Amino acid sequence: MTQVTVWNEYRHERTNPIAMDIYPNGIHTAIATQLQEEYGFSAQTATLDEAEHGLTVEVLNRTDVLIWWGHMAHDEVDDEIVNRVQARVLEGMGLIILHSGHYSKIFKKLMGTSCALKWREADEKERLWVVNPAHPIAAGIGEYIELEQEEMYGEHFDIPTPDELVFVSWFEGGEVFRSGCTYSRGQGKVFYFRPGHETYPTYHNPQIIRVIANAVNWAADGRGAQPQYGHVPVPLEQIHR
Amino acid sequence: MTQVTVWNEYRHERTNPIAMDIYPNGIHTAIATQLQEEYGFSAQTATLDEAEHGLTVEVLNRTDVLIWWGHMAHDEVDDEIVNRVQARVLEGMGLIILHSGHYSKIFKKLMGTSCALKWREADEKERLWVVNPAHPIAAGIGEYIELEQEEMYGEHFDIPTPDELVFVSWFEGGEVFRSGCTYSRGQGKVFYFRPGHETYPTYHNPQIIRVIANAVNWAADGRGAQPQYGHVPVPLEQIHR
Amino acid sequence: MTQVTVWNEYRHERTNPIAMDIYPNGIHTAIATQLQEEYGFSAQTATLDEAEHGLTVEVLNRTDVLIWWGHMAHDEVDDEIVNRVQARVLEGMGLIILHSGHYSKIFKKLMGTSCALKWREADEKERLWVVNPAHPIAAGIGEYIELEQEEMYGEHFDIPTPDELVFVSWFEGGEVFRSGCTYSRGQGKVFYFRPGHETYPTYHNPQIIRVIANAVNWAADGRGAQPQYGHVPVPLEQIHR
Amino acid sequence: MTQVTVWNEYRHERTNPIAMDIYPNGIHTAIATQLQEEYGFSAQTATLDEAEHGLTVEVLNRTDVLIWWGHMAHDEVDDEIVNRVQARVLEGMGLIILHSGHYSKIFKKLMGTSCALKWREADEKERLWVVNPAHPIAAGIGEYIELEQEEMYGEHFDIPTPDELVFVSWFEGGEVFRSGCTYSRGQGKVFYFRPGHETYPTYHNPQIIRVIANAVNWAADGRGAQPQYGHVPVPLEQIHR
Repeated sequence: MTQVTVWNEYRHERTNPIAMDIYPNGIHTAIATQLQEEYGFSAQTATLDEAEHGLTVEVLNRTDVLIWWGHMAHDEVDDEIVNRVQARVLEGMGLIILHSGHYSKIFKKLMGTSCALKWREADEKERLWVVNPAHPIAAGIGEYIELEQEEMYGEHFDIPTPDELVFVSWFEGGEVFRSGCTYSRGQGKVFYFRPGHETYPTYHNPQIIRVIANAVNWAADGRGAQPQYGHVPVPLEQIHR
Repeated sequence: MTQVTVWNEYRHERTNPIAMDIYPNGIHTAIATQLQEEYGFSAQTATLDEAEHGLTVEVLNRTDVLIWWGHMAHDEVDDEIVNRVQARVLEGMGLIILHSGHYSKIFKKLMGTSCALKWREADEKERLWVVNPAHPIAAGIGEYIELEQEEMYGEHFDIPTPDELVFVSWFEGGEVFRSGCTYSRGQGKVFYFRPGHETYPTYHNPQIIRVIANAVNWAADGRGAQPQYGHVPVPLEQIHR
Repeated sequence: MTQVTVWNEYRHERTNPIAMDIYPNGIHTAIATQLQEEYGFSAQTATLDEAEHGLTVEVLNRTDVLIWWGHMAHDEVDDEIVNRVQARVLEGMGLIILHSGHYSKIFKKLMGTSCALKWREADEKERLWVVNPAHPIAAGIGEYIELEQEEMYGEHFDIPTPDELVFVSWFEGGEVFRSGCTYSRGQGKVFYFRPGHETYPTYHNPQIIRVIANAVNWAADGRGAQPQYGHVPVPLEQIHR
Repeated sequence: MTQVTVWNEYRHERTNPIAMDIYPNGIHTAIATQLQEEYGFSAQTATLDEAEHGLTVEVLNRTDVLIWWGHMAHDEVDDEIVNRVQARVLEGMGLIILHSGHYSKIFKKLMGTSCALKWREADEKERLWVVNPAHPIAAGIGEYIELEQEEMYGEHFDIPTPDELVFVSWFEGGEVFRSGCTYSRGQGKVFYFRPGHETYPTYHNPQIIRVIANAVNWAADGRGAQPQYGHVPVPLEQIHR
């Protein structure tokens, strides 16, 4: 059974009345509960203020896919934990970065770019168009997902070229955004998924949860090849018969 | 000096008063003139109703980059000429497909897909956002190109995953579109560029011409490596010392 | 249960004593039997000399993934059947092209290039190195697959840039080859896999069958998004509140 | 005129007699001289032991393309200089990483992976096959470049999927390697090129210098689009007419 850990900095939902109202137990709990109850994953949670941010070696070792939501406290995430997460991704753990996690230390470290973008909070309609209907992350989605109100994120999004582009968002105010992007890093797979500002009920939308569940399955897959690195003193006569 | 041939089916501009008014000498002439006068390319034109559609072996052999506009008469293009163009692309000729050329025989042949899309004529605002600011085709463009009125093309656009995605369009009515897509085919380079419905003055927009000129330079570049195909009876002892 | 159809032109194994000896019931039967018995797929076969080459509308409609082996009789494959297979791929059927199928009508049609390559029959050692260890098609494979003797295929292989490159082959005689290449075409997924000359027991190698089985799972996945094409007269007032 | 800066840690060539003999003035001088004299670039050099490693703000600001060779002293490169180089790449400076620079701080930072690989020093023959003959970096190269003796680098090479793969190496001892890889990072372009162990005369090979010169032209191109990041309070009424 695929083991999912949903990580959240869990600050807005304890201080902002709007966020508290939408996610009374935090974004992490809302996502984990749906992944467990509706999709049958084994889902646990971890948050910034726990010891080691809840991401001990033991927790990471048994995690197949880690989901990450952070925003106002990126700087409080310990560099050692970031390095630990990166190492696990390179070993094969899947990683799903949500929304404002674009500016997290772990995403910037894995991307190598600034991960900057444009943004605006104006209760705008968003449409996430499927541009790769053959991709398993888009399974069960029609032409697009419509969110009545969301924060706008606009291009240019300073990321490396995605290995695969699954969704492109349209925003009412005139912008577009590459909203669903896949990457491989080492033996691990990474998916960036844009929606989910804390003041909107985005993670109560069944289609959004469907995409996250699809991404868990996609990111948990693979990891079977066994590369070896370093010095290899194979004698040539083993090759030349 | 880079030799450009601008091909046009040249039907709308001889029958539709709006198109005639905007492009009295045809879209091909408008583009070729600007490429020659403003960018210093050597540009000639060719049209559907000429012998061999103006694309004789001799013309194609001396063409570095072919630009293609077609819409209502795709089926009248002779299959033999299509094969001839494809062969030249695989040899290294650049090819720029404009707007409704997405449904041309040559583009479908080079893509291997239906090249279907969604469309609507509603005088909508279009914004072509640069999503790859490092790409030479976007050189000299700011954040986006805005066209006050254009035909809408929407996703899903049934093309192979582009090698590089340079522009994504936003449309007022709620759609997005991958508007600037690069491909390599054999030793040749292909660029699809969305704008240019015949009833709008899109090809009089200096930024649109700038993109086409950039694409000519990009597509004319390269072609230096010399692959060889077929049987190669190299004795192994030439390899093993 | 995933439905696989293994198609084979089935000529060499009825005329060439070496091929007959290795594959007494044909390459198609060898592959289908192993996919069924060892991986639990429902696998049927189809061959060139059957009516409609065994690829009736009904057969294709119930096929999730089609596997294709052809070599000496590519030209005998009816264009109508080729068009039928292409249409099913664009609708979401997976397609795995093996070895000399690189020159099949269906592969060339889906690629848009010549699909030419270099080749040599010299009983050379081949090593298929995994270059994307995060990819599910490489699951369960170590660093590489070694085949003691195979036909050499060498670069340049005139294909579009693969969406994903999974294997690169090394040949004893001095060549390399992109041996495992993925593509999406419409809603369908395509995998090209190099090994399998008819005079070597390549399809009796469990690692080769493992890769094919992995590719079946990969290609059968997805197909959930539902793109729509054509005219969409959505009134703007539906968008603008 | 394109301004190139060739950076070298310049240690082997002052201590190892073989390297001293091949590159009496250092690898940096050998490369810079040829780029200047044979290709007409303006080329300067910089080395580890200069103040700020020779990479002052002023030097980087006037550099269009930075070439990087390092091996035994990666750890001595100051993190502040690494951050400065990364920032310039994201702004549009080209970067060419040679050979053992795969383990440099700047390359690992831009890639987000371990950049590990396999290696062996056994005087092996290497062939760099062109797998993308349409790419300008391969211009003027035939089918492959052959180097009589080089250090072996083997897959798996733990890098992100290249945007474009230009060369794949074959090694006598049985390995393959993705030897020419392009990336975009922000507005900048990055090229990794494998050959050039310090004990072989690889940078005196005219074809190797040709590839580096091609890469300088490729990496210096572009940088014209002007992305903007951060908060954009565009009123919706500017969009909705």
